[in-house]
Amino acid sequence: MGQMNEDLKREREKCSFNMNDLINLMDGGPDKTKMRREREDIMISRRDAYADIPEEYLSYKEQYEQAVKKSAYVFSLLRRLQHEGKTNLHNYRDVMANFLRSSDVGTGFPIAIHYIMFIPTIMSQASEEQQAQWLQRAWDCNIVGSYAQTELGHGTFIRGLETTATYDPSTKEFVLNSPTLTSYKWWGGGLGQTANYAIVVAQLYTKGECHGVHLFIVQLRDEETHMPLPGIKIGDVGLKMALNGVNNGFLGFNNCRIPRNQMLMKHSQVLEDGTYVRSPNSKLNYGAMVFTRVVIACDMVNYLSKAATIAVRFSAVRRQCQSKAGEPESQILDYLTQQHKLLPAVAACYALKVTAGKLWDTFSIVNEEMIAGNYERLPEIHALSCCLKAIATRDAASFIETCRLACGGHGFTYSSNLPATYCNAVAACTYEGENTVLLLQTARFLAKTWQDIDNENGKLTPTVEYLKTAKVKGYSHEWVNSVENIVYGFQVVSMRKIASCVKSMQTRVASGATFEDAWNMASVQLVSAAEAHCRVMILSTFSSEIKEMTRTTSKEIKRVLEQIVTLYAVYWALERLSDLLQYTTITGAHVDNLRAWYEELLTQLRPNAVGLVDAFDLRDEMLQSTLGAYDGRVYERLMEAALQSPLNAEPVNYTFQKYLKPFLQGKL
Amino acid sequence: MGQMNEDLKREREKCSFNMNDLINLMDGGPDKTKMRREREDIMISRRDAYADIPEEYLSYKEQYEQAVKKSAYVFSLLRRLQHEGKTNLHNYRDVMANFLRSSDVGTGFPIAIHYIMFIPTIMSQASEEQQAQWLQRAWDCNIVGSYAQTELGHGTFIRGLETTATYDPSTKEFVLNSPTLTSYKWWGGGLGQTANYAIVVAQLYTKGECHGVHLFIVQLRDEETHMPLPGIKIGDVGLKMALNGVNNGFLGFNNCRIPRNQMLMKHSQVLEDGTYVRSPNSKLNYGAMVFTRVVIACDMVNYLSKAATIAVRFSAVRRQCQSKAGEPESQILDYLTQQHKLLPAVAACYALKVTAGKLWDTFSIVNEEMIAGNYERLPEIHALSCCLKAIATRDAASFIETCRLACGGHGFTYSSNLPATYCNAVAACTYEGENTVLLLQTARFLAKTWQDIDNENGKLTPTVEYLKTAKVKGYSHEWVNSVENIVYGFQVVSMRKIASCVKSMQTRVASGATFEDAWNMASVQLVSAAEAHCRVMILSTFSSEIKEMTRTTSKEIKRVLEQIVTLYAVYWALERLSDLLQYTTITGAHVDNLRAWYEELLTQLRPNAVGLVDAFDLRDEMLQSTLGAYDGRVYERLMEAALQSPLNAEPVNYTFQKYLKPFLQGKL
Repeated sequence: MGQMNEDLKREREKCSFNMNDLINLMDGGPDKTKMRREREDIMISRRDAYADIPEEYLSYKEQYEQAVKKSAYVFSLLRRLQHEGKTNLHNYRDVMANFLRSSDVGTGFPIAIHYIMFIPTIMSQASEEQQAQWLQRAWDCNIVGSYAQTELGHGTFIRGLETTATYDPSTKEFVLNSPTLTSYKWWGGGLGQTANYAIVVAQLYTKGECHGVHLFIVQLRDEETHMPLPGIKIGDVGLKMALNGVNNGFLGFNNCRIPRNQMLMKHSQVLEDGTYVRSPNSKLNYGAMVFTRVVIACDMVNYLSKAATIAVRFSAVRRQCQSKAGEPESQILDYLTQQHKLLPAVAACYALKVTAGKLWDTFSIVNEEMIAGNYERLPEIHALSCCLKAIATRDAASFIETCRLACGGHGFTYSSNLPATYCNAVAACTYEGENTVLLLQTARFLAKTWQDIDNENGKLTPTVEYLKTAKVKGYSHEWVNSVENIVYGFQVVSMRKIASCVKSMQTRVASGATFEDAWNMASVQLVSAAEAHCRVMILSTFSSEIKEMTRTTSKEIKRVLEQIVTLYAVYWALERLSDLLQYTTITGAHVDNLRAWYEELLTQLRPNAVGLVDAFDLRDEMLQSTLGAYDGRVYERLMEAALQSPLNAEPVNYTFQKYLKPFLQGKL
Repeated sequence: MGQMNEDLKREREKCSFNMNDLINLMDGGPDKTKMRREREDIMISRRDAYADIPEEYLSYKEQYEQAVKKSAYVFSLLRRLQHEGKTNLHNYRDVMANFLRSSDVGTGFPIAIHYIMFIPTIMSQASEEQQAQWLQRAWDCNIVGSYAQTELGHGTFIRGLETTATYDPSTKEFVLNSPTLTSYKWWGGGLGQTANYAIVVAQLYTKGECHGVHLFIVQLRDEETHMPLPGIKIGDVGLKMALNGVNNGFLGFNNCRIPRNQMLMKHSQVLEDGTYVRSPNSKLNYGAMVFTRVVIACDMVNYLSKAATIAVRFSAVRRQCQSKAGEPESQILDYLTQQHKLLPAVAACYALKVTAGKLWDTFSIVNEEMIAGNYERLPEIHALSCCLKAIATRDAASFIETCRLACGGHGFTYSSNLPATYCNAVAACTYEGENTVLLLQTARFLAKTWQDIDNENGKLTPTVEYLKTAKVKGYSHEWVNSVENIVYGFQVVSMRKIASCVKSMQTRVASGATFEDAWNMASVQLVSAAEAHCRVMILSTFSSEIKEMTRTTSKEIKRVLEQIVTLYAVYWALERLSDLLQYTTITGAHVDNLRAWYEELLTQLRPNAVGLVDAFDLRDEMLQSTLGAYDGRVYERLMEAALQSPLNAEPVNYTFQKYLKPFLQGKL
C-alpha cells in the first residue's frame, strides 16, 4: 500500500477531537461500533470469491451475470448474519443498515428487492396462515421474490393499474391477465431473469365486481429449472442509467392461474364462494411503504457519506494554483469556493443520519401501536416519511453531484466511484414514489391539518404542532441569529406558505373552480410548503438530538458538532433566503451578517474537514475509490486503474487497419 | 411506423403559430433552413453502414471499436461537407454547428478533438510556414490530432504544468520529458489509441532558462503501423461516467525528440541557436480558448433541445392520475408542477441559442479585429465567453436532469436517450475550464472594471457599460413588472455584488491580508456576481434579439416568443429572488404578484408546448429516443427496445444453475 500522503497525514494531526469518541457517539456507543465492525468484517470477507473481474469493463449481459454471482455470495453472508438475529422489523433494521453500508453496490443486486419489498410485504399483508406458509422460505432465501406494482403505462396512480385478477369459484383460483400493452408490469427488481416469485398488484374482480387493487403472490418460474411458467411472459427491460445488475424486468399474464390462498389476506379476503370481505382499515397498506421510505433515507446517508469522504480526502491531496509566489500550490480544500461545495455536504451526512435514525425509531413505535390496533399516528408518519424520502434523495443526489464536480475531471472517472454513486443515488428520486408526488402527499396532510387548526377538538400531532404555535405567535421575531431562530423562521415559512395555498385554493373554489383545478394551480407552492415543513423537521430533529447526544462528550466533540448543526442551518437559511425575506421580518440588511457567519463557519470547520469524514468510518473496501482511499495515494491509484483498461492490453487496436487508416487515406 | 399518437396529434392541431415560419425564423431564413436540412440529410445518410449494433450493450472495449467505426464514417461525411466550404473560422461555424446537431453522439467521437482543438490551435498559433506544412493535412484528415494540456496532477493552473521541452541546439531539436507521475498528460480526447499527432503544452527550456508553457506538435504514432514512437508512453485512461468512445488517453515522454520547427511559432520563437524571442502580445493564446467555449455553448443548446423535445412530447403522451371522476387520466403536461419543470427548460433552449449565436457573431468580429492587430476587446470577450460557457453548461446540465427526472422511471431508461444526454452534457461543466474557475475569471474582469469605473479616461466596453449606468441611477426602480425591469434588477444585483466584493477585499487588504487571501474570502460572492453578470447578458441579448427578429413576423409568432422571453426572465427572477429582495427595492409584497405572473405564463404557454419543441426540428434520427419520437408511440418503442436486451435471448441465464440455485438451496 505504501506510505500515507503527507497532506492527509497533516490533516489528521490537526483534527481537534478524538476520532474513536466521535465514531462511537455516532454509532450509539462503543459496543455498537464493535458489532458494526464485526458485521462489516463478515460482509467484506468473501469479496475475493466474487470480485475477481472489474465489473465496469464488462458488457451489459456479463454485468448481470457478475451481479448474480456477487449477490449469491453477499446474500449468503447476510443470511448468516440473519440467522444470528431474529425475524422481526427491529433486527431487520440493523441487518439492512449493515448491508447497505458495507455491500459493494456497483451495478446493484437483483436480489435486493427480495429484502426491501418482498419480505416486508409478506410480513405486513399476509394472514398468519400465509406467513406460516411463505415467510420462513423467503427469510431463508429458498425462494427469491420480486415486487410487481408499476406498469408500463402506470406509475404513481395505483388505482389506474390495469392488471386483473379475476376469481374463478369453480376452480377456487384467481386468473391473472394483462389486457393491454400498457398493463405489462415494468421495473420490478430481479424480475427479468432472477426472481422465481413475485408480489403482484392487480385489480381484484369477483362475482363480476371490481374491488380495486390487491396483492397476490405469484410463482413465475419453476423452482428446479427456472423456466417461466405457463401464462407468464417475462423479460429484462434493458439498459438503464445505472444499476444494471438489478435486472429490472417486465411481466405479462395470459390466463395465469394461482390458488385462492395466494391473495394476501391479512386485511381483505375473498371467500371460497367468491364473496369479498372488505378490510376494516384501508390505511394498513401504508405501513410497508413507510418502512421502505425509511430504508431509502438511510441508504442515502450511505451514498452521500461515501461521496463526501472521497471528495474531502481528494481535496486535501489535490493542489492547484499558487496563491503565494514561491510557495507550493494550495490544497484545493483551502479555497472557500471548495469548502462551500463540500462542507454543507458533510453536514448533510450528519443531519440526515440523525434524522433518518430518529424517524426509524418513531416508525418502530408507531408500528407497535398499529400492531396493537392504534392507527392514530399513521397519517402523520406517512406524511413525514413521504417528505423525508423526497428531500433526503434530492439533497443527497444533488450534494453527491456537487462533490463529484468538485473533483474536476477525476470526478468524471469511473474509478473515483463518484459517477456510480451519483447515478445509483439519483435513481431513488424516482423509485418508490416520485419526489414531486410525495411532496404533494405531504402537502395534502398539511393543508388538511391547517384547515382543522381552529377546530377546538382538533388535537395536532407532534410534528405539526408548530403550525399552531407559529400561527399564534405570528411571524415577528428577532432574526436569523441562532439555530433556534432559523428553525422558527422555517416554521413561519411553512405555516405561511400552507396558509396562503389554502387561501388561494378557497378563493378559486369560491369562484367556481373544481377542487382538483384549484389544487393544481397551487401545486408549485404546495411542493415548496412541504419542503419547508421537511426542513423544519430535519433542522429541529438534528439540532435537538445533537444537543442530547453531546451532553456528556468532550468539549471538542461538542464544539465541532455544534458547528456542523449551525452550518447546516445557516446554509439552508441562505439557500431559502427568498422565503425568509418574504415571510419573516428579516431584511436585506441582515443577510450580509448571515453570509459572514456562514463564511466564518466554513473557516472554523476547515481544519476538521478530513476528521469529520474519517469519522464515517468507511473502509477502502466500501469506498472503492481511487480518489478517496484512506492513504490518499490518488495519482498512483488513478494510473493503476487506467492500466487495467482492456484497451491497454495491445498497442494498436484492430480498428486502425480496418476503419481509421482507410479514413485517413480518404478511402471511406 | 404506425399512426401518430392521438394526444400529440391534438397538441399539434392547437398550436397557435405556423411551424415552418418559426423554424425559418430561428434558422435565420428559409434558405438557411433548406441548407441545414440538406446537410442533415448527408450527415444521417450512411448511418446504416455503422449503426448496425446497438452500442449500449457492448463492452467498454467494443464501444471504443464501434466509436472508431462510427467516427470514420461520420467524419468522412463531414469532410465531404467541408470540401464544399472554405477553410476559415466563418464556415467552420456552420460545419461544426451542423455536426454537433445531427451527429449520433452516443459514446462520443475519438476524432472530435481534432476539429475542436487541434485544427483551431494550428490556425491561431502556428506561423504561416507551419500552417502550410500542417493545416491542409489536418483539414483533410490525413493525420488525426489530439490536444495534450491537462496533466494527471495539473488542470486549471497552466503555469503549474510539469512536462518539459528542452531545446538542444546541437541537433536543433526539442527534447520532451515527463519528470514525474503527476506530469503525465491526462484526458486528451483520442489520445489513447486513435490520434497519431498531438499538440502538447510544455514548459519551454532553452539556454538553461525556463520561458513558461508553449505549444508543440508531436508525432505520437507511426502513420503506417500506428505503433507508438520511441520515447512515447501512451494509453487509455479507463472507464468514465460517459463519453466512453472518446478514448481519453494519457501520455508520458522519455527523451522524445522533435524538430525545432514543431514548436508553434506564430507568436514566440526559439531561434536555431536557442535564443528565445518573446511574443509581443501574451494575450494571443486566449483566441482559441474563446472559440472552443463558444462551440461548447452551442453544443449545450443541442443537448438541451433534445432533452426538452423528448420530455415535452412524452409528457403530452403520458397520462397519470384521474383529476376528474369518470374522465380519462390527465396528460402529465397539464400539471402545473410538470410545466414548471419543462417550460423554463424550453425557454432556456431559445435563450441560449440566441445568446450563443450572438456571442459567435461578436467573436467573429473581435477575431477580425485581432487579425488586424486590435486586441482591445479581447479581455471583454474572454470574460464573456468564460461566464457564458459556465452558465450555459450548468443550466443545460441542470435542466436536462430536470427533464429526465420529469419523465419518471422511463427517464432512467437508456433508450429514452436522456441518461446519455445528461452525462454527456454535464462533462462540459468540467472540461475546457472548470466552471467555478471560469466564473472567477469573469469576476476578476468585473472587479478590475469596477475599480477603474470612476477613472475619467476609463471607457467601459459595451457588455459592462451597465455597471456605470446602474451606479449612477442607483437601485431604486419600480419593481419587477416587465422584462426590462427584471434585466435592470439583475444589473443592479451584479453591480452591487461586485461593489460589495471589491469593498470587502479592500477592507481585508487594509487590515493586513494579502490580496490572494482577501480574494479567496470573497470568492463565493464573486462567483455569484459573475453569475448575475452573465444573467444580465443572456436576458438582455435574448430580449433585444427577439424584439429585432419578430419585427416582421406574424403576430402569433411574436406573441409566443414574447411569452418565452418573459417566462425566462420571470423564472430567473424567482430563482434569484433573494438577490433581488436584498439589492433592489422590491419587497415581499411584490413577490406574490411575480409568482402569479409566472403561473399565468405557464398556463399561456401550455397549449404551444409541443409546437415550441417541434420547432427545434430535431428528427427522430437525431433524438434517438423511445420517449421522444415524433409520432409519440412511446410504449411500443419501450417494449421493442426492451426486447433487444441480450438477456432476453434465452429464457434462463446460465448463472441460475451456477450461482443462484446453490444459493437458494443454502449450499453457498
